[in-house]
Parts: sequence; structure tokens; C-alpha cells
Amino acid sequence: MSTPLLLGSLMEALRCLPGVGLKSAQRMAFHLLQRDRSGGMRLAQSLTQAMSNIGHCVSCRTFTEEKSCTVCVNPYRQKNGQICVVESPADVHAIEQTGQFSGRYFVLMGRLSPLDGIGPTDIGLDLLASRLASETFSEVILATNPTVEGDATARYIGGICQQYRVPASRIAHGVPVGGELEMVDGTTLSHSLIGRQRLIY
Amino acid sequence: MSTPLLLGSLMEALRCLPGVGLKSAQRMAFHLLQRDRSGGMRLAQSLTQAMSNIGHCVSCRTFTEEKSCTVCVNPYRQKNGQICVVESPADVHAIEQTGQFSGRYFVLMGRLSPLDGIGPTDIGLDLLASRLASETFSEVILATNPTVEGDATARYIGGICQQYRVPASRIAHGVPVGGELEMVDGTTLSHSLIGRQRLIY
Ligand SMILES: [Zn+2]
Ligand SMILES: [Zn+2]
Repeated sequence: MSTPLLLGSLMEALRCLPGVGLKSAQRMAFHLLQRDRSGGMRLAQSLTQAMSNIGHCVSCRTFTEEKSCTVCVNPYRQKNGQICVVESPADVHAIEQTGQFSGRYFVLMGRLSPLDGIGPTDIGLDLLASRLASETFSEVILATNPTVEGDATARYIGGICQQYRVPASRIAHGVPVGGELEMVDGTTLSHSLIGRQRLIY
Repeated sequence: MSTPLLLGSLMEALRCLPGVGLKSAQRMAFHLLQRDRSGGMRLAQSLTQAMSNIGHCVSCRTFTEEKSCTVCVNPYRQKNGQICVVESPADVHAIEQTGQFSGRYFVLMGRLSPLDGIGPTDIGLDLLASRLASETFSEVILATNPTVEGDATARYIGGICQQYRVPASRIAHGVPVGGELEMVDGTTLSHSLIGRQRLIY
């Protein structure tokens, strides 16, 4: 084969990106070399800076390059009193994009998974408990994923909330907006029936 | 929005990769930060090295970090006598993977395109001509793309070959192997009829 060493390493390195196989990696490497070397250099710089400088917020554990994230230090967000518990920073991102929530977050960076040895302190529940003890919250919204582990994690955190007498709620399961009933799996469909809400006229 | 600055820049920078939109860039950035920081650092390093050190072979213009590429300096390849003219290093890569060709290449890094101001010297045809004049080749295989511009470029180079009395050939157009006739466009189909070859028993 005639692939120069550095080109081969670049193709290999690109495969650390999710969804990038051999063919896409080749296409990406050739594209950057032929048409966008400055874009490639900027990407290298961004990667280095992000990988070395992005850490976790001391209050909510989400990604930030500061001590605290912009949500946690926002006085308007602090006044809101709600705190939404999610599994990952990507979930924060998704919820922020709905524009429906103006409270703060707590990011578990995972979920309870006894079989993998992931217990309460591994997902920061000691920090959450100490915040529930020292700060005043109006509601804890449990927005972990609707999976077996996500549900178990939500129930566990619900127990902590009860202990500190903070109201807790779980996000609704149901039929995705714009989806078709026949395409939705049975479990989701039965959740959407159980969780039905009376129409108000 | 709560996206930290460095995370936002990383998402933006990832979009220089072909086929990566906003959603994929987000997924990639979160994946690297949460699960593969060392992969992200390796990618940054590979990008920097490739973008700054990969240049073009002095004989064939393909990508290489050396003065000459590994194909051009290979004595076995030199003895072969065939030279295959392609538009891009990705084409070299594709042909190498067939294992069907053991000659050398000449990479135009483009094609003739008078409307875009791309003339013969822009695609290295002065270098190709001087090689045809000074070296001995048994055949020039014209493997530019089967497009209007690729065909015109092949014809133009065919003229140069005639001038230096080197036999030139054009790769065959036709129905892709494994394809279905009804899915092939009319031009390709008529090429495959015109270029039909007698079965030998
Ligand atoms: Zn925070
Ligand atoms: Zn070469």
C-alpha cells in the first residue's frame, strides 16, 4: 500500500469519533488535506484545548472550563428553585434546547449500575445529598433515561429527596410528538395510556 | 444556552469534517469528553502532524511526508513501465486497494476546468510532459473520473502522450459489477454496450 505513514495515522485517529468507520475516515482525511488544511489545524487546536481544559462544575458536575458552569452561577436560574437530574451533559444540552426549563441541573455522569460496580458516590449522589441538605429547592425533576437502570436511579434519588423533604417528580413517558402510534413500542404505548391526562375545556 | 465556550468551539470545529452536521458534531464532542479524552488528544496530534507535514511527491504529486512517495521510489514499480493518471490521492488509494495495478501514478490534484481558470500547468501537466520526455513508459493509463471535465482532461493528456509517442489508454466505462441494469443511468448503459467485449470460449 502507498498510504504515507502520517496519512495512515490520521485515518486511524479519526476513527475514535463515534460513527466514523474506515471509509468515512479516509474521506475525512483526504478532504482536510486537499481542501481544508486550516480547518484541520483549527480542529486540532480545539480538540487539545477542550480535552485538556474542560472539567466538571463543582455544583452540578456538568462540563465546564470554569469552576462553576454558567447555569449554576446564573442568579435567575438560582431563584427558580427547580433542579433537574440528568445522566449526562448531552442531556442538559437537549433540555436547554427545548427552552422549557429555567432551573438548574445535576449531572450524574452515569447511572446506578451495581453489576458494573457503579454505586451512589460514583454518580455524585453524596454531593447531591449535601446540596439538598444545605440549599432550598422547590422540586427535583428526575430526568434520567427511561431505561431499567435510569428508572432505578430515579427511584433511588427519589428516596434521597424524600429523606430531605424535597418534592420529586419523574419526567413523563409517552408517545413521541409527531410519531405514529403503530411505530411506538408496546411499553411506551402502555406508559402513554397510564399517564393519560384529562383534556381541559 | 449553557454550552461552555471551549465545548461550543469544538462542536463548531468538528463541522469542518465532511458529512458532519450540528447533531453529529455534538455527539462527537460529548463522546470524546465523556469517554475518550486520550483518543481526542491523539486525533489532535495526528491532525497537526498531517496538516503541517504532508506535502506532495516531486515525481507524481500524490500526498507524502517525504520528498518522493513510496510508490515512486519502489524499484519494482519503476520496472513495470505503466503510469496511471488520476485526479486525486483518494483515487490512488482506491486503485491500490484493488491490487490490480503495479505501476506508478501521476496525480493531477484536480482536472482541467477552463471556466474555473484551471489550466494544464495547474494540474501538473508540464511535469508529466517532462517525465514522458525523459523517462521510458510502456503505457499511460488515463483514469480520470468519467465526467465531462474528467473525459476532456483525459483527451488532453492523450494528446500529450501522442506527442511523446507513449501509448495511452482510457479506463473502461460500464455497468458497475454487482449493479442492476435497471438502476444504471442511460449514458453508462450505452457506454457498456459500445465497449462490449466478445466472450472467448
Ligand atoms: Zn453547574
Ligand atoms: Zn510519487
